[in-house]
Amino acid sequence: MTSDGNRQITLSQRPVGYPTESDFSLVESPVPHPREGEVGVQAIWLSLDPYQRGRIRGGASYAAPVELGEVITGGVVGRVIESRTPSFQVGDIVEGPLGWQEYALSDGRNLRKVDTTMGPLPTALGVLGMPGMTAYFGLLDVGQPKPGDTVVISAASGAVGQVVGQIAKIMGCRAVGIAGSQEKIDYIVDELGFDAGINYKTENLDTALATACPLGVDVYFDNVGGVVTDAVLEHINTFARNVICGQISQYNLEEPEPGPRNLGLLIIHQARMEGFLVFQFAHRYEEGRQRIAGWMKAGKVKYREHVVEGLENAPRAFMGLMRGENFGKLLIKVSGE
Amino acid sequence: MTSDGNRQITLSQRPVGYPTESDFSLVESPVPHPREGEVGVQAIWLSLDPYQRGRIRGGASYAAPVELGEVITGGVVGRVIESRTPSFQVGDIVEGPLGWQEYALSDGRNLRKVDTTMGPLPTALGVLGMPGMTAYFGLLDVGQPKPGDTVVISAASGAVGQVVGQIAKIMGCRAVGIAGSQEKIDYIVDELGFDAGINYKTENLDTALATACPLGVDVYFDNVGGVVTDAVLEHINTFARNVICGQISQYNLEEPEPGPRNLGLLIIHQARMEGFLVFQFAHRYEEGRQRIAGWMKAGKVKYREHVVEGLENAPRAFMGLMRGENFGKLLIKVSGE
Repeated sequence: MTSDGNRQITLSQRPVGYPTESDFSLVESPVPHPREGEVGVQAIWLSLDPYQRGRIRGGASYAAPVELGEVITGGVVGRVIESRTPSFQVGDIVEGPLGWQEYALSDGRNLRKVDTTMGPLPTALGVLGMPGMTAYFGLLDVGQPKPGDTVVISAASGAVGQVVGQIAKIMGCRAVGIAGSQEKIDYIVDELGFDAGINYKTENLDTALATACPLGVDVYFDNVGGVVTDAVLEHINTFARNVICGQISQYNLEEPEPGPRNLGLLIIHQARMEGFLVFQFAHRYEEGRQRIAGWMKAGKVKYREHVVEGLENAPRAFMGLMRGENFGKLLIKVSGE
Repeated sequence: MTSDGNRQITLSQRPVGYPTESDFSLVESPVPHPREGEVGVQAIWLSLDPYQRGRIRGGASYAAPVELGEVITGGVVGRVIESRTPSFQVGDIVEGPLGWQEYALSDGRNLRKVDTTMGPLPTALGVLGMPGMTAYFGLLDVGQPKPGDTVVISAASGAVGQVVGQIAKIMGCRAVGIAGSQEKIDYIVDELGFDAGINYKTENLDTALATACPLGVDVYFDNVGGVVTDAVLEHINTFARNVICGQISQYNLEEPEPGPRNLGLLIIHQARMEGFLVFQFAHRYEEGRQRIAGWMKAGKVKYREHVVEGLENAPRAFMGLMRGENFGKLLIKVSGE
């Protein structure tokens, strides 16, 4: 499906619980043209990420919410098709938060030129983009793994989790991934080299963790929260670091779900729990990108993408992301490269 | 009440929920005499502390539990009355974990000589003892307050909390205490110089926190957990440090009490939560003691003790401690100084 206009996905109503198709609208407007100081970008790849659920919730958070009728927030890799700033040339491949739409304008402040020699274009939204940076800084700076540590990762086959586990292995750690299907478990163990995988849908978490982490858990990289996190906390070691990256199990609840008050475990184990947003490491993204790119070249970091064709399919793909139906970094192919 | 023997309080059964008198026994045995390498100590002051609830629970924790029939764990200041080691002389005032009893033996490993010039004897169990060290290292090393930060303290008039708030003031912070009576609030504000106090039993925590912490909460020093902690977390600032020192609201529950799954707040605020045991700072106790003693001398750190006379009253006093009925550091006066 193509059109002569600019197709956009906007927020038609705030989701209650899991998002549904009717929360989104596909609208079309004229392709915008840059004013002085701006560039016009045609989207090629659109990134779908769990944080977007927070943006369409409304209410105060670390970023302003998407308002009703506005284009949904999202990272995009695209091509500069018009430029009225010396900073960008027509044909440049750029990455930035341009949203769920085919064409966008930017004043360049949030836009970066993609070094296309580092990897295929969509990696700028995945392993070499925000999820990769999240994995790199979240694990290394917040989690501070030491060789021999056991690192447990929830949503382990996801865009962030798959990178966390591989970096943990590079750092000499035991990597244990938690995911929701045998296919995902097989992937992280057989393809990515995790030491063990736990299927949270079919296994008893407590016994599976005891088996997979015979020496306990030193670093827990949490993308999901809820019962998975409750279970992992029962296995943490003294001075454990719990990196709170995401809590996707909680994002689509109509009513907040109570859980055990287990902060006493942090005392007993003298353990830390820390939430972070990747933006705090923005000044070091180049470091992260270079190191991950180096590991990719050396065959030590692989990645898996889940590609859905066509902007119009973004809402349905996003609904699947909320339920863990994607397998790898979820991307929308908006137009040809 | 005195006797010629060694009166001891032992654990007769493990408490279910709040401890009751029948969980404890008052027994009497002969006064023990040291063997080669040991000292005999007569207890003067016994410290009652919330951690002791964990020790009589049974089950694995950071320390072995008190077994049925054993003397309850507790810090003691006493006088050496017999010595068969060159390390201690008869008459020395010593402090160590000698338990709820009038006389005890020690091989000296857990015993320290008390510098009686630093403060009255019971301060070795309070402001210059374990609670003071807990306050000092918990606030400064774990909480890392900066001048201008707002520091909120739960159980603010307790042995640890009262010291935390005063050190927070010394560090140039705004100190806000949460306690369970108007008398306690008046004390921490009028006597100790806290900037504000919140009575968690009579005030709406959310609105009271908003009023008392107009710039939000940078450091939360938590001694209680439960609904108080749930409320404070809703007010934390970016990069907030939540020092998890105690969770007394949870220690006497027959069934674990569920609470909101609010770890997402740590992400949004990029905040840290850290549990600790004071023992991790044992190599720096002398630093902590010297600094607090200096502040005491300068009139910048005051303290309040709640003294109960007679070992036989320890169980009842401990039961009161579990319900917040003490007002200040709870001590049993076991014998005359």
